[in-house]
Amino acid sequence: MSEEVKLHGVWASPFSYRVIWALKLKGIAYEYVEEDLSNKSALLLHYNPVHKQIPVLVHAGKPICESMIIIEYIEEMWPDTPLLPTDHYKRAIARFWIKFADDKALSVLRRTLYTTGEELEKAIKECLEILEIVEEHGLEDKKYFNGEKIGMVDIAFGSILYWLGVNEEVLGVKLLEPHKFPRLHKWFHSFQEVPVIKENLPNRDNVISFLKGRRETLEASST
Amino acid sequence: MSEEVKLHGVWASPFSYRVIWALKLKGIAYEYVEEDLSNKSALLLHYNPVHKQIPVLVHAGKPICESMIIIEYIEEMWPDTPLLPTDHYKRAIARFWIKFADDKALSVLRRTLYTTGEELEKAIKECLEILEIVEEHGLEDKKYFNGEKIGMVDIAFGSILYWLGVNEEVLGVKLLEPHKFPRLHKWFHSFQEVPVIKENLPNRDNVISFLKGRRETLEASST
Repeated sequence: MSEEVKLHGVWASPFSYRVIWALKLKGIAYEYVEEDLSNKSALLLHYNPVHKQIPVLVHAGKPICESMIIIEYIEEMWPDTPLLPTDHYKRAIARFWIKFADDKALSVLRRTLYTTGEELEKAIKECLEILEIVEEHGLEDKKYFNGEKIGMVDIAFGSILYWLGVNEEVLGVKLLEPHKFPRLHKWFHSFQEVPVIKENLPNRDNVISFLKGRRETLEASST
Repeated sequence: MSEEVKLHGVWASPFSYRVIWALKLKGIAYEYVEEDLSNKSALLLHYNPVHKQIPVLVHAGKPICESMIIIEYIEEMWPDTPLLPTDHYKRAIARFWIKFADDKALSVLRRTLYTTGEELEKAIKECLEILEIVEEHGLEDKKYFNGEKIGMVDIAFGSILYWLGVNEEVLGVKLLEPHKFPRLHKWFHSFQEVPVIKENLPNRDNVISFLKGRRETLEASST
């Protein structure tokens, strides 16, 4: 079996980008396969029979699912340019924030994407509470979550904040305001300045159109 | 700072037991501190300001939160008696199932614990679907999730299935039936036969009383 690396993803997915960023930061060559979630390929269903979702990384013919688990695999398989600290305690803290990103920040982002009216107002309020927690406890005065270099926690939160930023524009609200969240705001700026991130983001206008279209359908069905 | 290990937990919590099992399987000496969640200690709030929850492991004065992240820390800090496979791909698969346990199985267990009426019926139905997925895709014909030895995935699911089993008794329903879930049923039997597990479970009658009390309050407030 060849050592070929393939990534099955979707152009507008924050989770696909997480894996793309990790692969690019590590300098790993891979082939990208665009999936259509409205008409899932037999291969995707074969690779991820449990969740039937992207991203799936296929390495030497074997599939790995779930974006942050894929990145832990990449980290272990290609240890150069580490994305987790080497110190055991710092690794645990990094994993704590990755879990927080996926359990809390992501679920609140999803609710700002998929709700309307009062539900949406509640989601926006909770989103600000989540940002406040990360501002207060997550970053301290470090450039990135692990210190001077971009790592796995930045990838986890970065994807969420990029999509949140696009959604702010769709909703016409401002959430990540610099005077409310100075550390997080500064961090997000540094994050987007990293060449691999800057050069590997979906076209913003296309994501806006995509989210706007979905919101129109959502609002039409909720009235 | 001494290398002292302290575990802050609650006697009836599946998450405390996860950490207890990992510590005992590794033969790590620790001091146990029982917390009262209705009157959280200043120390608990200091150690876990984000979630204000147990379990918290304090090692050499430094706190680690979230049961499975604590166990990854334990695994890295005390690598003897490994709880994750060494092979990178198998580690990714193990992490996939740990995430499935915490994202899917746990959330459905919680709903069987905290709902009544139609909501409870729906939760029970979904619980059976979750068990079916693990039966079909998770175990194959292995004794434990990683093969011949108990590991981290067994700890993750074992805690959920133990509390689910107690809850079955409280609700008067049977979910993990051997003819429906032969592999999972057999696995759960093997799991409970491991001396460290068998000797470190909360008193079943006490957990039943605890859950019954909570259900009575729940049913009284939902009528």
